[in-house]
Amino acid sequence: PPGRKVLIVYAHQEPKSLNGSLKTVAVEELSKQGCSVTVSDLYAMQFEPRATRNDIVGCLHNSEAFNYGVESWEAYKRGGLSNDLIEEQKKVQEADLLIFQFPLYWFSMPAIMKGWMDRVLVQGFAYDFPNCYDSGLLKNKLALFSFTTGGSEDMYAKGSISGDIRYLLWPMQHGIMHFCGVKVLAPHICFAPEYVSEEKRKEMLIAWAQRLKTLWKEEPINCSPEWYFK
Amino acid sequence: PPGRKVLIVYAHQEPKSLNGSLKTVAVEELSKQGCSVTVSDLYAMQFEPRATRNDIVGCLHNSEAFNYGVESWEAYKRGGLSNDLIEEQKKVQEADLLIFQFPLYWFSMPAIMKGWMDRVLVQGFAYDFPNCYDSGLLKNKLALFSFTTGGSEDMYAKGSISGDIRYLLWPMQHGIMHFCGVKVLAPHICFAPEYVSEEKRKEMLIAWAQRLKTLWKEEPINCSPEWYFK
Repeated sequence: PPGRKVLIVYAHQEPKSLNGSLKTVAVEELSKQGCSVTVSDLYAMQFEPRATRNDIVGCLHNSEAFNYGVESWEAYKRGGLSNDLIEEQKKVQEADLLIFQFPLYWFSMPAIMKGWMDRVLVQGFAYDFPNCYDSGLLKNKLALFSFTTGGSEDMYAKGSISGDIRYLLWPMQHGIMHFCGVKVLAPHICFAPEYVSEEKRKEMLIAWAQRLKTLWKEEPINCSPEWYFK
Repeated sequence: PPGRKVLIVYAHQEPKSLNGSLKTVAVEELSKQGCSVTVSDLYAMQFEPRATRNDIVGCLHNSEAFNYGVESWEAYKRGGLSNDLIEEQKKVQEADLLIFQFPLYWFSMPAIMKGWMDRVLVQGFAYDFPNCYDSGLLKNKLALFSFTTGGSEDMYAKGSISGDIRYLLWPMQHGIMHFCGVKVLAPHICFAPEYVSEEKRKEMLIAWAQRLKTLWKEEPINCSPEWYFK
């Protein structure tokens, strides 16, 4: 709906890839609805995935022994995080919906996107204690993981060798997003696009555009072990 | 035992951290046993986590649309991967045991270590089709995930908010190591070292050294959904 803000965190090297097209479809469809859409194109930004001392501007809280969690928390509070992180945090803060668009790498997100999680979602900004899970600091936001896989849908069925696809969503959806208080919409999964016809890939794009039309009416999943492990 | 080779892939910024000490304890104890131990100290190496075109030396297989999986596979076969990857692959190839030492970041490994997985374990080297899972190309090797957590042991119990710690091991142990044919030893977990006494932290180091003394007699876990989700 008009006025809603969306941040798409996008991790693919190739604009012509299916991931690139899925991202473009989302930008177009959501813009058409009147949403304001921002894209963090991580590879194009050469986003830094490594959590290091460079993320802290100025003096350390404890220069005797570097503790990234403590230092990033302290830096956040005094406005001393590096500019790239402040920029990403602003985008997150303004967004009503976060869409993560990526190819599945090793049952998870690519390292460049994991680095975005590690570095952007610092204590004090995304959570604090006791403000985590349902009282996480990013509550009232929504997240959606949209990804492509190498393996086919039946390889990710319960009982088959790679296990239910939901098993691998636990760390991302529950361990990250739910931990920060974000409500999680059902994932959007394009299985094995490299092994299907061009026509089938076009159908995947249409299906995504179609889903986005009614996305704002969707209820979040019940992000608890039952959803993942039955 | 004498002659066994161990690769420790280590991801912590601070040598004085508990992770740093756990790594040192492993180097010392395994060396004492006559093992030859190599450490990949990812932050010290400024290891690159991003999977990009820079990993491919020379021409691309398909320069029209960059596909990292295909390009790294083709480059591997013709010896055209970047030097940092060739180095890491040599270390993996020679190792009987891989130890991953890291602080848990967001229910997973830090991005710098995820980048090691994404970039080093390429098709053709670590797996191929149909050579995956029990017939993965790294079979006859062992892996062990050794990590520290922020949360306490009871936060990671079945039924509590963060769920059984085993849930989050699925992508790492099964999705990565088992997929490559590597047999997985039980994880070694130091819960919440930042919230315990100096004495308790010393006990953690002693317990790790103790475990390593009889490590080679351990049986791998049964890396299937039952172990993770009961």
